[in-house]
Amino acid sequence: MNERCYVLTLSCPDRVGIVAAVGSLIASHHGWIVEASHHSAPSNWFFMRHLVRADSLPFGVDEFRQRFAHIAGEFHMTWSIVDTAVRKRVVILVSKKDHCLADLLYRWRTNELAFDVPCIVSNHEDLRPLVEWHGIPYIHVPISSSNREAAFRHIDELCTSHGADVVVLARFMQVVPQAMCEKYSGKIINIHHSFLPSFVGSRPYHHAWERGVKLIGATCHYVTAELDAGPIIEQDVVRVDHADSVEDMVRLGRDVEKAVLARGLQYHLEDRVLVHDHRTIVFT
Amino acid sequence: MNERCYVLTLSCPDRVGIVAAVGSLIASHHGWIVEASHHSAPSNWFFMRHLVRADSLPFGVDEFRQRFAHIAGEFHMTWSIVDTAVRKRVVILVSKKDHCLADLLYRWRTNELAFDVPCIVSNHEDLRPLVEWHGIPYIHVPISSSNREAAFRHIDELCTSHGADVVVLARFMQVVPQAMCEKYSGKIINIHHSFLPSFVGSRPYHHAWERGVKLIGATCHYVTAELDAGPIIEQDVVRVDHADSVEDMVRLGRDVEKAVLARGLQYHLEDRVLVHDHRTIVFT
Amino acid sequence: MNERCYVLTLSCPDRVGIVAAVGSLIASHHGWIVEASHHSAPSNWFFMRHLVRADSLPFGVDEFRQRFAHIAGEFHMTWSIVDTAVRKRVVILVSKKDHCLADLLYRWRTNELAFDVPCIVSNHEDLRPLVEWHGIPYIHVPISSSNREAAFRHIDELCTSHGADVVVLARFMQVVPQAMCEKYSGKIINIHHSFLPSFVGSRPYHHAWERGVKLIGATCHYVTAELDAGPIIEQDVVRVDHADSVEDMVRLGRDVEKAVLARGLQYHLEDRVLVHDHRTIVFT
Amino acid sequence: MNERCYVLTLSCPDRVGIVAAVGSLIASHHGWIVEASHHSAPSNWFFMRHLVRADSLPFGVDEFRQRFAHIAGEFHMTWSIVDTAVRKRVVILVSKKDHCLADLLYRWRTNELAFDVPCIVSNHEDLRPLVEWHGIPYIHVPISSSNREAAFRHIDELCTSHGADVVVLARFMQVVPQAMCEKYSGKIINIHHSFLPSFVGSRPYHHAWERGVKLIGATCHYVTAELDAGPIIEQDVVRVDHADSVEDMVRLGRDVEKAVLARGLQYHLEDRVLVHDHRTIVFT
Repeated sequence: MNERCYVLTLSCPDRVGIVAAVGSLIASHHGWIVEASHHSAPSNWFFMRHLVRADSLPFGVDEFRQRFAHIAGEFHMTWSIVDTAVRKRVVILVSKKDHCLADLLYRWRTNELAFDVPCIVSNHEDLRPLVEWHGIPYIHVPISSSNREAAFRHIDELCTSHGADVVVLARFMQVVPQAMCEKYSGKIINIHHSFLPSFVGSRPYHHAWERGVKLIGATCHYVTAELDAGPIIEQDVVRVDHADSVEDMVRLGRDVEKAVLARGLQYHLEDRVLVHDHRTIVFT
Repeated sequence: MNERCYVLTLSCPDRVGIVAAVGSLIASHHGWIVEASHHSAPSNWFFMRHLVRADSLPFGVDEFRQRFAHIAGEFHMTWSIVDTAVRKRVVILVSKKDHCLADLLYRWRTNELAFDVPCIVSNHEDLRPLVEWHGIPYIHVPISSSNREAAFRHIDELCTSHGADVVVLARFMQVVPQAMCEKYSGKIINIHHSFLPSFVGSRPYHHAWERGVKLIGATCHYVTAELDAGPIIEQDVVRVDHADSVEDMVRLGRDVEKAVLARGLQYHLEDRVLVHDHRTIVFT
Repeated sequence: MNERCYVLTLSCPDRVGIVAAVGSLIASHHGWIVEASHHSAPSNWFFMRHLVRADSLPFGVDEFRQRFAHIAGEFHMTWSIVDTAVRKRVVILVSKKDHCLADLLYRWRTNELAFDVPCIVSNHEDLRPLVEWHGIPYIHVPISSSNREAAFRHIDELCTSHGADVVVLARFMQVVPQAMCEKYSGKIINIHHSFLPSFVGSRPYHHAWERGVKLIGATCHYVTAELDAGPIIEQDVVRVDHADSVEDMVRLGRDVEKAVLARGLQYHLEDRVLVHDHRTIVFT
Repeated sequence: MNERCYVLTLSCPDRVGIVAAVGSLIASHHGWIVEASHHSAPSNWFFMRHLVRADSLPFGVDEFRQRFAHIAGEFHMTWSIVDTAVRKRVVILVSKKDHCLADLLYRWRTNELAFDVPCIVSNHEDLRPLVEWHGIPYIHVPISSSNREAAFRHIDELCTSHGADVVVLARFMQVVPQAMCEKYSGKIINIHHSFLPSFVGSRPYHHAWERGVKLIGATCHYVTAELDAGPIIEQDVVRVDHADSVEDMVRLGRDVEKAVLARGLQYHLEDRVLVHDHRTIVFT
């Protein structure tokens, strides 16, 4: 996916002719389809993602959108067309643990994941040196039981003023207020350190140890008002055994958390994720 | 593990000298240790499994037990010594689904898993041909809401009269009464078709689909009175995606269930599993 | 994939308009596309698979083919349209080891994999009881160094007379003559008991043990004249460690071989596999 | 493994009484065994690793070694006793790619892996900023076809003068001269970007793509004079499909390389790896 492309994603009630209508529009302008993915859900809902080479079309993204709007209306589509040349802006919220942040920054710095980071926000000062070495502004917003509401209002303003397309909770360890969850619906990505729906909430590795599970996992999901219950984007697990202490699980889990968040974010950045009925369609 | 061995397993409060005491007893009789595993739990409990070549010792299993009893008393051990030449007797309970049963019978028939099957008990007639082709008695015990108690009394008697060392619920789909769970504590092995503790109870694949998880799993555990809450012996998962229907999950799950039950049973048959505080130590 | 469908697969030089042309033909007859997969190879070759509900089209498979032939000619396509109601006929060749055969027969018997088995051919008598219990003809064709050519001529005739669409070598352990490989190009599926290209040829587990690898694997591939070098359909691995003997590897490997062959065969039966430049495109 | 321990590792011809002799020595001084691992190889060779709490013994590591030497002589052991309070010194050699280095430095900085890094040596200047941010000396040793021999003599001197216990080739991309391989036998650890023995040598991802494998891998091994043929410490794989380009494989492979090198190095640092007959015993 090196060449500039337009990413068309849509969902709509399933019926005959969607593929053909979209394909004909693109073909009539000699558009070159690089990737195409479809999914028909049992609920009779249809999902689609097309990646079209920008230079194959005789017009820009705005005119592509205008022309597509006609089809979209006819089929009652929810849709978007995105230009891969416009990098998404990701505001990352962190606390004290830095493994997910360090991993994301590595992938950002080496351009493995293509996004901009206007700023990183934390309720602690600990990760400032790491962030500033990367040349990224680090904004400290202390959060306490007494200032909680104001602090999140501040964070919300920071996301807005920095033009965040996505907010990533990289082991942020704070519950985001319901209002903010709703305002950024489908735009806040969290990494939870368990294989959901097992071990919702805090100290999942402790609970995993007590239950004696033989695999531990991590879950990347969109944040909704209900804790750890949002649509799941990606999950993975790693094997543990009786000899692994809680601390071993924490250590082994870090690598899974990093990998799962990086994949989940990548899918989101590449507009591969559609949400429907609280589940995700992930076109990989 | 082809040669005949004695399997010594023990657990006791952790303190200095256990390894040496056991090792010295065995060495003083020129016993040849083929495998040795230890585990010190954070609760200061110690677990051990030794596999000793039978022909290296100058006495049989009874005298080995007598001699070991002295050490065992000194260290307050819970222990057993088992002769690998004596195959465990496994009564298998099934209902209508045969994938786990067929897999176990294959491993039994080819001697991949070493055990005897005195009989297979089912609340349906469906699997009789498969079982009888293997030359194993098939006993039909209908279960209904009205005869439930009597039926399980009958099953319990069958297990006793057939000398069951282990009872395997191979997708048996019936809740075993509390009294039987307690009578056969640590001897009833179930395969649950989810990655516990997610999706306890019935229809786990439906619940997994609804939650939109990206991996589904299976769990082999000892049965206790609380449903699907017994000590976990083995678990595994397989990846699914949005395109997989509940039926696809059921199909993919079958292979995981088979594999997890076979491994869990193998560990039990080889006396690799110790239970402590509701968790298993599995010496693999 | 329960409803009857037509499976359209094609490959051709990549250019603008393929998706639209195919989509328009199907849409113009109100065809309902259930699954759609595309791939553009770096070599500028295009691959596509469409699953269309049979009852959504106003004609049968023959007329579908006739109408499609026009598009196919225009775009220089290699293509096929297959009716899922017509089950493929699979002749299975085995020797003495039955784990892959037993696994395939289980999936056949329970209709997990949809295919017909006109006969099973072996150079030994060992597996006759298993096969005949399934009600499938078992044909014994002894192979020795002296009758090798004649034996394979006989096997070839059996495949032809039984209308084989696919020939599966389920741990057949015999090298298929070049002429037969070429005659059934892309139609003979083998399971090799290593993670190719490591350990080509015989005794791969012995070689794996000697090299001290930490994972062993299996490979399902189309058979070509060069030994174990045909296009790979599916592979998988399982972890081993220093304590695993060659015999342990053989045992652990069996489960991987079974799983990999079953998946590879499924992909082939569902027309998900296209071959190009010695590599497979597998639309899963 | 937080408390200070002594790690005893040994290998010797297998015979009765080894476990008891070692156990008795430790027990007679009230030594507390935290971990114990044994392995009897089919070649009748015996391997053992004991982790003993330092504060449970009435003497230091030197006297422990002296007392153990008697047993060692009797059983013809190759052995070592190591103090976990003495961190191993690891010299890391790199070229231009930094993913493995960045990963190791993260684990070093957060103390996940316990070792010292006296210096990092590279034939390029590219990674100086990353290394110096960590406060580690960065030594540039250019290597060209004309100065090759002198350059490696210099690197060898650097390893010696910095007291290297281990040399890690973190995607160093240079063939280490035979003399240096032999001098540091069992002390140079390489990460190779393929699942060995497949794709020995350069450009393994290109070869993997051409062969059309469905999994790619990485291998951590000790370096010997024969290229990519040393004893394997750890391996892992990740799934790829037809849509993955060589560049995608390179990207996906990076995460496997990082994980496999980190695990392999951890095993070595914790004295979990014994080498025998070109294979490793890894007590995990």
